[in-house]
Amino acid sequence: MSRRPGTLHLNAFLMGVGHHEAAWRLPESDPFAHTDVGHFQELARIAERGKLDSLFLADSPVLWNNVGRRPSGALEPTVLLTALAGVTEHIGLIATASTTYNEPFNLARRFASVDHVSGGRAGWNIVTTAGADAARNFNLDELPAHRDRYQRAAEFIEVSRKLWDSWADDAALGDKAAGVWGDQERIYPPRHVGRYFKVAGALNVPRPPQGYPLLVQAGSSEDGKELAARYAEAVFTAQQTLAEAQAFYTDLKARTRALGRDPDGIRILPGIVPVLGGTEAEAHALADELDRLIVPEYAKRQLAITLGISPDDLHLDRELPAELPAEEQIEGAKSRRTLVVALARRERLTVRQLIGRLGGGRGHRTFAGTPEQVADAVEDWWQNGAADGFNVMPPVLPSGLAAFVEQVVPILQRRGLFRTEYAGRTLRDNYGLPRPANQFRADALATSVS
Amino acid sequence: MSRRPGTLHLNAFLMGVGHHEAAWRLPESDPFAHTDVGHFQELARIAERGKLDSLFLADSPVLWNNVGRRPSGALEPTVLLTALAGVTEHIGLIATASTTYNEPFNLARRFASVDHVSGGRAGWNIVTTAGADAARNFNLDELPAHRDRYQRAAEFIEVSRKLWDSWADDAALGDKAAGVWGDQERIYPPRHVGRYFKVAGALNVPRPPQGYPLLVQAGSSEDGKELAARYAEAVFTAQQTLAEAQAFYTDLKARTRALGRDPDGIRILPGIVPVLGGTEAEAHALADELDRLIVPEYAKRQLAITLGISPDDLHLDRELPAELPAEEQIEGAKSRRTLVVALARRERLTVRQLIGRLGGGRGHRTFAGTPEQVADAVEDWWQNGAADGFNVMPPVLPSGLAAFVEQVVPILQRRGLFRTEYAGRTLRDNYGLPRPANQFRADALATSVS
Repeated sequence: MSRRPGTLHLNAFLMGVGHHEAAWRLPESDPFAHTDVGHFQELARIAERGKLDSLFLADSPVLWNNVGRRPSGALEPTVLLTALAGVTEHIGLIATASTTYNEPFNLARRFASVDHVSGGRAGWNIVTTAGADAARNFNLDELPAHRDRYQRAAEFIEVSRKLWDSWADDAALGDKAAGVWGDQERIYPPRHVGRYFKVAGALNVPRPPQGYPLLVQAGSSEDGKELAARYAEAVFTAQQTLAEAQAFYTDLKARTRALGRDPDGIRILPGIVPVLGGTEAEAHALADELDRLIVPEYAKRQLAITLGISPDDLHLDRELPAELPAEEQIEGAKSRRTLVVALARRERLTVRQLIGRLGGGRGHRTFAGTPEQVADAVEDWWQNGAADGFNVMPPVLPSGLAAFVEQVVPILQRRGLFRTEYAGRTLRDNYGLPRPANQFRADALATSVS
Repeated sequence: MSRRPGTLHLNAFLMGVGHHEAAWRLPESDPFAHTDVGHFQELARIAERGKLDSLFLADSPVLWNNVGRRPSGALEPTVLLTALAGVTEHIGLIATASTTYNEPFNLARRFASVDHVSGGRAGWNIVTTAGADAARNFNLDELPAHRDRYQRAAEFIEVSRKLWDSWADDAALGDKAAGVWGDQERIYPPRHVGRYFKVAGALNVPRPPQGYPLLVQAGSSEDGKELAARYAEAVFTAQQTLAEAQAFYTDLKARTRALGRDPDGIRILPGIVPVLGGTEAEAHALADELDRLIVPEYAKRQLAITLGISPDDLHLDRELPAELPAEEQIEGAKSRRTLVVALARRERLTVRQLIGRLGGGRGHRTFAGTPEQVADAVEDWWQNGAADGFNVMPPVLPSGLAAFVEQVVPILQRRGLFRTEYAGRTLRDNYGLPRPANQFRADALATSVS
């Protein structure tokens, strides 16, 4: 089989002291690092040393669960990304923000500001935010319907792009002699009137270095895939097997093409939780140690919420109940529910085993092995139409990221699969994606001539 | 007269390349610096070299006026403050944010995050945001009524304080051995149901280093003063004469006392635009050069908006019309309108002269003189019950801030009026204000005993 051309893309998904929910209990972990900017700055420096494309921060505007379970709370991602921009030069900075609980003017402005401050390295992971608990922090009693959230998201993105395009790239003149700072003819107020939003005026930030931040999407429900095909430039996804990942990849590229977009304009990155060891046995020993540190009662409660059932219906040493609410009945994170059920049924896992698998990567693929084996796993999916790259989710941080950068990245570089130096300066440069043209520019030129 | 005890407080109000609207036209100015993080980082370092208490960024979520007039747009303040936190250690970081166009959960979280990232140096300048143009960026057709905006602001602050207090300072345990990260009994969800907001859950950020960010207020209308007396810990105000400043100071301290608060718990800082020269003549020459660079047509239009009249009713070489809409009829920035009219009437200024005065400091007191004279002016107000300190608004940046720090601050230090080293680490330390107790703590202790 011939070598696939180009380079793969690697994103470092940063989460507290690691993606494994029990990582904070390891002797090496600082249980308070998840709100310590210095910890994240160290992670950012490590990832940039590995020439990774980007960093990513998940988010939801809610305090999850019982704080007994694990390190709780998180610094707001656009603030944290800005702090990471200050200690890095090339790596992209992707933050999650909700279209359900923000206003487009505020959020578009904040991402534009991060893009300016970072010299063109901002990315926005667009989420609609599942869960009634989040809704109740924002004047609502119940979660808006799934379909409604996605329709609002689409309009939110349209408005945001209008706002980012509301300044021509050459609107600022700085003509001191004439006393004319900018050309008002090159300002394009959105005057948007839609179902969810009315936004009249131009953004009060010049067009960002990247035109607009990289648009990222991570939901894999039907609505989520439609949104991704229409707008996303990178997609994070949870896929357990090569066949599933190939099906997802083929489907999303086809949807993108069907909408008249270049399928190469959307980068698909499945998650991988690399549990690394010098030998396979060492890797599995680390995985086992982490799973042993999980407190199952908390995890059982969370699993029940995901499945839309009572915790009393789950028994640690039995499989999932035969009857479960269907995806259609779930108004929360639909694709997550489906993935969890499929994993449990396919491998006939007990609730305890399932909790171990989910505690390691929350439904993402956990792969324990040597650096060579992890590199093989990465190459296999990349080479076989399942991925344009990977969302790397180290189980323990910073050590798991350092191990990936020091042990796996050099192998991928030797195989010619991954860059040895950054080629450009922006996040779009890292992903090999173009800077978008200004949607208003042609009209504006015509107008300014008349 | 005896020396007033204590130290005065100095805030550096940062605005692009200076507070004078024509500063960008000077040969020394970079007309694009107002969106350049490096420019602001230089300013922050200069201010910290001068041991100033804090930095301050104004803001409004709207693109003002015609971009021809002067450098337009601004980086979002909480993002910019975070970038400034990274290059400083002691100086406080105060950002303006609107209670009319934000949600409490989002904003309280962002300020808590800045407070964590900066090690306890965040302050929030609470504004209700005047102007229909801003309203039209947020789904509204018209500006909400002044009284309504202030009622919403009060509830917004109450909710925010509940959110910052929603974690006990000792809620996080980090008990690895027991597998218990935090104590859920020490989490206090606000369960707030009010006229403007329903916010159920606890914040997803631990209680900030300062308890909560310093609360700052700057409106001087009746509603504004009431809000300040109830909640503010520092107040920025525009006062032109010693007598007016004394009256404002006495009134606000009395209102604060009347509400059962310690009047020393609110620091009052009038604005001063120091135009510095080696001699008085040099200072006035700089002031004149700046005023000559103003393009009056833009400024006339802005003045008309402030006064609630048509630009056609203003003539550059005549005084203001005898009949003007009263403050009660203005739904925008009431106190600004009143200040502008009082200044024009008192000094019988033509519109052109008024524009010059406003262009220099937008209604704040401009003082042109030698460093010794500026230090005298500062000492005079501080000593005579008109100010606890000053909001320093250099006409040109960075040069005007550097001049203030290098020439005026040493005089104030020699006179024993200003610190020579920072005494603490937080913004509250700088202002000599206490860290607030958690409003829920007593109940919580009682509950956890039962």
